[in-house]
Amino acid sequence: MSQIMNKYVDIFNDSLDRTFFDQVVNTKLEESMKYSLSAGGKRIRPVLLLMTLSMLHTDLKKGIETAKALEMIHTYSLIHDDLPAMDNDDYRRGLQTNHKVYGEAIAILAGDALLTKAFELITKDANIEAEDKIKLIRLLSESSGHQGMVGGQVLDMDSEDKEITLDTLRKIHRYKTGALIRFSVVAACTIAKANSKTFLLLDAFSQELGMIFQIKDDLLDIEGDFDKIGKAVGSDEINNKSTYISILGKVNTKIALEQHVNQALYLLDQLDEKYQTEELKSLTKLFASRDK
Amino acid sequence: MSQIMNKYVDIFNDSLDRTFFDQVVNTKLEESMKYSLSAGGKRIRPVLLLMTLSMLHTDLKKGIETAKALEMIHTYSLIHDDLPAMDNDDYRRGLQTNHKVYGEAIAILAGDALLTKAFELITKDANIEAEDKIKLIRLLSESSGHQGMVGGQVLDMDSEDKEITLDTLRKIHRYKTGALIRFSVVAACTIAKANSKTFLLLDAFSQELGMIFQIKDDLLDIEGDFDKIGKAVGSDEINNKSTYISILGKVNTKIALEQHVNQALYLLDQLDEKYQTEELKSLTKLFASRDK
Repeated sequence: MSQIMNKYVDIFNDSLDRTFFDQVVNTKLEESMKYSLSAGGKRIRPVLLLMTLSMLHTDLKKGIETAKALEMIHTYSLIHDDLPAMDNDDYRRGLQTNHKVYGEAIAILAGDALLTKAFELITKDANIEAEDKIKLIRLLSESSGHQGMVGGQVLDMDSEDKEITLDTLRKIHRYKTGALIRFSVVAACTIAKANSKTFLLLDAFSQELGMIFQIKDDLLDIEGDFDKIGKAVGSDEINNKSTYISILGKVNTKIALEQHVNQALYLLDQLDEKYQTEELKSLTKLFASRDK
Repeated sequence: MSQIMNKYVDIFNDSLDRTFFDQVVNTKLEESMKYSLSAGGKRIRPVLLLMTLSMLHTDLKKGIETAKALEMIHTYSLIHDDLPAMDNDDYRRGLQTNHKVYGEAIAILAGDALLTKAFELITKDANIEAEDKIKLIRLLSESSGHQGMVGGQVLDMDSEDKEITLDTLRKIHRYKTGALIRFSVVAACTIAKANSKTFLLLDAFSQELGMIFQIKDDLLDIEGDFDKIGKAVGSDEINNKSTYISILGKVNTKIALEQHVNQALYLLDQLDEKYQTEELKSLTKLFASRDK
């Protein structure tokens, strides 16, 4: 996505490549898991976690397994979302979706196995203590389960072909995409044992960032470049999906985006001086200006 | 299934009914999760965990959340197994399968959410310490993921319509059904902090029990009563599935069953005197003599 992310993307991908899948029972299943894990993701969530950890002056080693777990949860959710019974997508980021390559049954099971593996990875992390592992597993399960990402997915399905309010739209995004973005930042605070002031500021910041990410997604759907965003421009309107633009109009959506950016930057400014770095600010601006 | 299980089934179901699903995001999703959780399961795994804990003179309270987590994993696997892309079953235990009631998309997501919730429950258990929680989550994820239950499911799919050896059949069962039965016993040993002699004996016992369960399943498929087993008698042969009977023949299958029962009882006899109770022995015999 950009220069400022590359360093963290490289650290992450390098470690992911070396992830040991021990006790292989069936190579086809593991192949399918790895296929989707390495299918060109932008690694936004792992980068956000590692970048926050770096700002909090904490060894990145302490966050790498949690970052992998997080990316496994994100990846399983994409595999299951793409299934014929859900969005029925044949392509993602220019590559065939998991079930197009391996069949529906393996795709369902690969998703299940990635979700399960996420929690296993955290238990085996040699760099953090048991109490912190429990906090992270609890946070990750809450963020991704029925009261988090999966709950948001059902809310979203329930809202298809309906007129919804801005409040409902914000609720969908808070759970469906916001919960894992929030986890990225809050997990870093947990690992770094941030004090409560830092924790609260960064928690609030992560929620602004989630909003920025989603509003920009809606804008890219009408203004983006097909080759870059990898899907048909205007697909939300064709699919009769409520978006910020359909509810607020384009001008007000851009104003809302700017407000969230300002609020995110303001929150970062309130952090103690030792945490004042440019990386998270640049990432925030990048979230709002990205073209894919 | 029988008198000796009832006490534990009651304790388990009573606690499960009171499980708090906090922060309800979408009631339909939670309804779907609860539908399958309470759809008349025999609770074999929770009973086995609690019965082993009782034998090890440990407060059942320490095992109840892990037992619920285990049943959630088992339940999610049934929901996903029943999907059209997998076994395409309309009924289970006389009730409509999850996707027949709630649709495929919700069924996939309810399975995902139950799998996620299982790990959350263990993190929130107030009765066991952090180190033990980590051991249990690690064991449960290994038992149910790509190197456990899910791996076994793929092995099983790969063996359909093929002639397989007894070794392959045993491998399928060791992972597909054996891994969670083993977890039930090994989790109890972990919670009770059993010494290594007890741990090794009960681990070996649990693997015999898994074999007994599966061999009896194969026998019930040809000798069972439709009304009791809840599926057509002879369905394995119709579906061209390899079983103990298709490989060994009926007479040798019954001899194998008896050998595993004897070995399981022998292992229990080797336990220290303070662990000599009749419950697990009765349960072993019940596994081999059950009619459903």
